[in-house]
Amino acid sequence: MNTETGQFILRPGDIDALVYGASFLGSGGGGDPYIGRLILMREMEAAPALPVIDPAAVPDDANIIGIGAVGAPSVLIERLPNVDSFVYALKRVEQHSGKKIDAIIPIEAGGINATLPLAVALRAGLPVIDADGMGRAFPETQMMTFSINGYLASPLYLVDDHGDCTIVETKDNAKTDRWIRSVIDAMGGAAMAAAYPLTGKMLKAAAVRNTISTQLNIGRTVYAARHKKRDPVKALVRHFRDHGTEPRFAASLFTGKVSDRNIKIDGAFNIGRLRISDMRNPDDVCRIAVKNENLIVRQGGKVLAVVPDIITVVDADSADPITTENLKFGQRVKVIALAAPDVLRTPKALAVVGPRAFKLKCDYTQLEDLHDR
Amino acid sequence: MNTETGQFILRPGDIDALVYGASFLGSGGGGDPYIGRLILMREMEAAPALPVIDPAAVPDDANIIGIGAVGAPSVLIERLPNVDSFVYALKRVEQHSGKKIDAIIPIEAGGINATLPLAVALRAGLPVIDADGMGRAFPETQMMTFSINGYLASPLYLVDDHGDCTIVETKDNAKTDRWIRSVIDAMGGAAMAAAYPLTGKMLKAAAVRNTISTQLNIGRTVYAARHKKRDPVKALVRHFRDHGTEPRFAASLFTGKVSDRNIKIDGAFNIGRLRISDMRNPDDVCRIAVKNENLIVRQGGKVLAVVPDIITVVDADSADPITTENLKFGQRVKVIALAAPDVLRTPKALAVVGPRAFKLKCDYTQLEDLHDR
Repeated sequence: MNTETGQFILRPGDIDALVYGASFLGSGGGGDPYIGRLILMREMEAAPALPVIDPAAVPDDANIIGIGAVGAPSVLIERLPNVDSFVYALKRVEQHSGKKIDAIIPIEAGGINATLPLAVALRAGLPVIDADGMGRAFPETQMMTFSINGYLASPLYLVDDHGDCTIVETKDNAKTDRWIRSVIDAMGGAAMAAAYPLTGKMLKAAAVRNTISTQLNIGRTVYAARHKKRDPVKALVRHFRDHGTEPRFAASLFTGKVSDRNIKIDGAFNIGRLRISDMRNPDDVCRIAVKNENLIVRQGGKVLAVVPDIITVVDADSADPITTENLKFGQRVKVIALAAPDVLRTPKALAVVGPRAFKLKCDYTQLEDLHDR
Repeated sequence: MNTETGQFILRPGDIDALVYGASFLGSGGGGDPYIGRLILMREMEAAPALPVIDPAAVPDDANIIGIGAVGAPSVLIERLPNVDSFVYALKRVEQHSGKKIDAIIPIEAGGINATLPLAVALRAGLPVIDADGMGRAFPETQMMTFSINGYLASPLYLVDDHGDCTIVETKDNAKTDRWIRSVIDAMGGAAMAAAYPLTGKMLKAAAVRNTISTQLNIGRTVYAARHKKRDPVKALVRHFRDHGTEPRFAASLFTGKVSDRNIKIDGAFNIGRLRISDMRNPDDVCRIAVKNENLIVRQGGKVLAVVPDIITVVDADSADPITTENLKFGQRVKVIALAAPDVLRTPKALAVVGPRAFKLKCDYTQLEDLHDR
């Protein structure tokens, strides 16, 4: 695959900005990207240059495969994801399909799965595509734009730390999701996955584009603001309002302290509610519903932002994104929302990743229609 | 594979005897062979001759694969196993391995899995080997002689009614068993399996030999006795005492009525106890411990038979074997035991299928040492 004109090189100096952006797009879920950062740092020591290819530059007949860890984020923190097992999965994909893999695409742009596939690409000596299948983090594998566009996750390869493997082949991505959830339990709660075999043509039709660039933009904007002693949240909001590239709008929704955190583990899901109260007026509260990711923010009866728009809680001082697991009672935070990429806002996409798909009793309203420009 | 000298042809007229023998070797478990009988009858209408090959005649380099349904027997009764799905599994095995399959071997000799693989062989146009991996029915896949001899169940193919597939590849058969149990739940409680890829050489080293012949011998002995108005149980006991072929000993252990049936469903297992009381002296009881199959028979403090020897409860009048699910309170029954084939009685085999492997607090004693000749 010759794509020299449509690529940039990711280097060790980019990792902090990338990880910040991945945390932000995690929308409160997606697992702690700190683990992915450690693994990526280690791989970058051995191979300090990763080609990142613009999807527009990918040939139609290229073979691309999605890479990510699946299962309970809490398990992935206790047992480091195994890069060798991912490379083994890639080898099995090539053996079974009889086709050489040309590049890797992260399955998610948020959380641990935004950084882990980059480490796998480095170890496997493959480039990575500047795109993903969610543009953020979502709780279920069939919530990917590849699936929304009718492409199959199958054959989906799950590999454990010992290189033992489960392969699921179905004609129905929701079924694939159910089956892998069941076997992942027996595999120890998490596994390394290769899924969604795509041609370059399929990639261009279905991927959320340039999400690695977006991660870097988010991270660099925040780091630049910190460096200039400016408010990183304001800088972020301004960045997305002023720039023509997707996502095109951001808003700072609420500032306060965490006054209730009622999150329960239900299978592989963290489900529940967060309440954040204004520091001076405790009756002024905003509430966030959670299913792994933050789904909806309400203040009084008013919706401030709703899925698939990206809702992230950051530390009020540092502006560091905080996953739902790591949020603490009394913590001072800001709630920020970022418009979802356009491909997540089509009627076809909203049927799968919109509020009703998460059993919320409201229709989708775009973030920019809920707030003044 | 040219094996014309070492084969016989199974024909529709053999089915009743075969199914009787399969029920008997089910040892109270293995699922109701009635379903397998129906499916085999249907296939025999289209193809009324199935070559059954003596393992001794199989070339060392032949490719053989184990076939059987896995999951909850109760599910297999409600949803007929799908022969097409098995044939699809065979196709996937050939695609993934790049090798043509020469013959099918049943994974069990008892219950539904003794007859189902024969239907699959007919549909696929393949011969079946006169052998299996258990010589009876057992509750777990790693309790096969192939596994006891160190051969891998992997890659193990599970196919559902829609031709959707899970493939498990591990280096540890107990792990494979755990993983497939977990995913079978999500697959609806049961699935069609192809597993234990064997060469002819491996087959000859590890299989329980001539178990289809044994099924036919058991069935024909009982049908002949019924025809001559003789006691089928006595005829069976005499047959196995008088003939030199394995299994070499049988005993009628107890006659009475079912006075307690305390069996609970625990996951994919039926676990519990049966009590059978003498008709004239209700204090004279025998007790049978069950984990899918009948594991041990005790009368007072004395062991009458213990796993891996085959313990079967039959109707006192008809001598029809009764699975634990179908046993009813008050039913008049006889308890019969049949010596296990020698390959199940080695120290290596007893570690996996002997009393201690089932958490029974006794060592294995051969059936013929517990009873007078």
